[in-house]
Amino acid sequence: DLVEALQSFFATSGLLAGKKALVTAGGTQEPLDPVRYLGNRSSGRMGFAVAEALREAGAETILVSAPNELPTPPGVRRIAVMTAEEMHAAVMDEFAHMDIVVKAAAVADYRPLANAEQKIKKDGSSLTLELVPTPDILAECGKKKERQFLVGFAAETEKLYEHAQAKMQRKNVDMLVANDVTKPGAGFGSPTNIVSLLFPNGKKIDLPQMNKLDVARRLVQEIAERLSEKE
Amino acid sequence: DLVEALQSFFATSGLLAGKKALVTAGGTQEPLDPVRYLGNRSSGRMGFAVAEALREAGAETILVSAPNELPTPPGVRRIAVMTAEEMHAAVMDEFAHMDIVVKAAAVADYRPLANAEQKIKKDGSSLTLELVPTPDILAECGKKKERQFLVGFAAETEKLYEHAQAKMQRKNVDMLVANDVTKPGAGFGSPTNIVSLLFPNGKKIDLPQMNKLDVARRLVQEIAERLSEKE
Repeated sequence: DLVEALQSFFATSGLLAGKKALVTAGGTQEPLDPVRYLGNRSSGRMGFAVAEALREAGAETILVSAPNELPTPPGVRRIAVMTAEEMHAAVMDEFAHMDIVVKAAAVADYRPLANAEQKIKKDGSSLTLELVPTPDILAECGKKKERQFLVGFAAETEKLYEHAQAKMQRKNVDMLVANDVTKPGAGFGSPTNIVSLLFPNGKKIDLPQMNKLDVARRLVQEIAERLSEKE
Repeated sequence: DLVEALQSFFATSGLLAGKKALVTAGGTQEPLDPVRYLGNRSSGRMGFAVAEALREAGAETILVSAPNELPTPPGVRRIAVMTAEEMHAAVMDEFAHMDIVVKAAAVADYRPLANAEQKIKKDGSSLTLELVPTPDILAECGKKKERQFLVGFAAETEKLYEHAQAKMQRKNVDMLVANDVTKPGAGFGSPTNIVSLLFPNGKKIDLPQMNKLDVARRLVQEIAERLSEKE
């Protein structure tokens, strides 16, 4: 079957040997104070699976991860970050040397303007929080890219293809992985995912529900095919 | 040594047999939309350890937990909640039947006024978030308690004893577990904790750095002694 075919393909291929890859994963946390934060829902599992599949395929792989309790896949170098700004700095430090960049993290678009040094005390009345935009890491990668194959993710709750197509164009990515996170069996916390792969030429591949590592292996296969076409 | 003494004490005591206990744990998540939330930093480990220690000591134990990936301690009944309001409802449903209530969770004081049904789209400009207070579960338990032995936690970043003493009085708790979460080896994500136990009569016990299960066993021992004094 498909899963076995993928596994045997990977075990023998080394099809990304000599390539350098970077994956972002998890949900960033933007502190309001030492105990409170603005979070983005993400278990990190999809990104960790992509890092594992890239490594399996022979790529030297860096995983830039927001806080989570997942074990680092064997052979992968993990860089721990908390906020969108820290993730931005870690990605930009490495970007120039990469062949493949997969942005699977759920990155906060906004962060609290102020980060209080001491815990904010409750006083009962309502409160207004000022938020300011964070750096758009994917868009910056899209602008800076030269040889890099850039993969974005779009977690949507409505108008999946419309939003995902628009994001692909706007961010200048080479492949967009779109999923409707409201579907059972897709998205946050689920061991499985249901995604569609979108490409700049209009091609769309709808994948069935698979566990996240098999989805990741399929993504890596698509990346490898397109990288070899570029060369 | 102390740790072994505690373990053997627990293995043979059953000193809370016939008692009913409820523990809250983890950090609540208050959604802004399907992907973003306001979170409270807490690994849930301290609360899970307290539930385990209560069960070890023979109490019938309920664990009301905000989202986390920790395994449920054997023999403990887990009730999964996400928000402060859900935690409030779960605690109040059970409160009247309990002998011991330990509020170890990090509960959001404020939640976003609006929870958008669809993912909020980024438009580049800054954003203002309206926050409103959530129910104060510990204070309500303090008001309603009859026979219940009520334990609160105070995670502070400054003026530890001043804030903790004030909280103990204000919330009408029988024991307050205070820790300075900025200390290395204490608080969030750490496998160990360094706490002080405060009592309404002014007594204070400073515990050394211990792993969280040993801290929990020590708390349970203090609870059991005071419960038997009440009877």
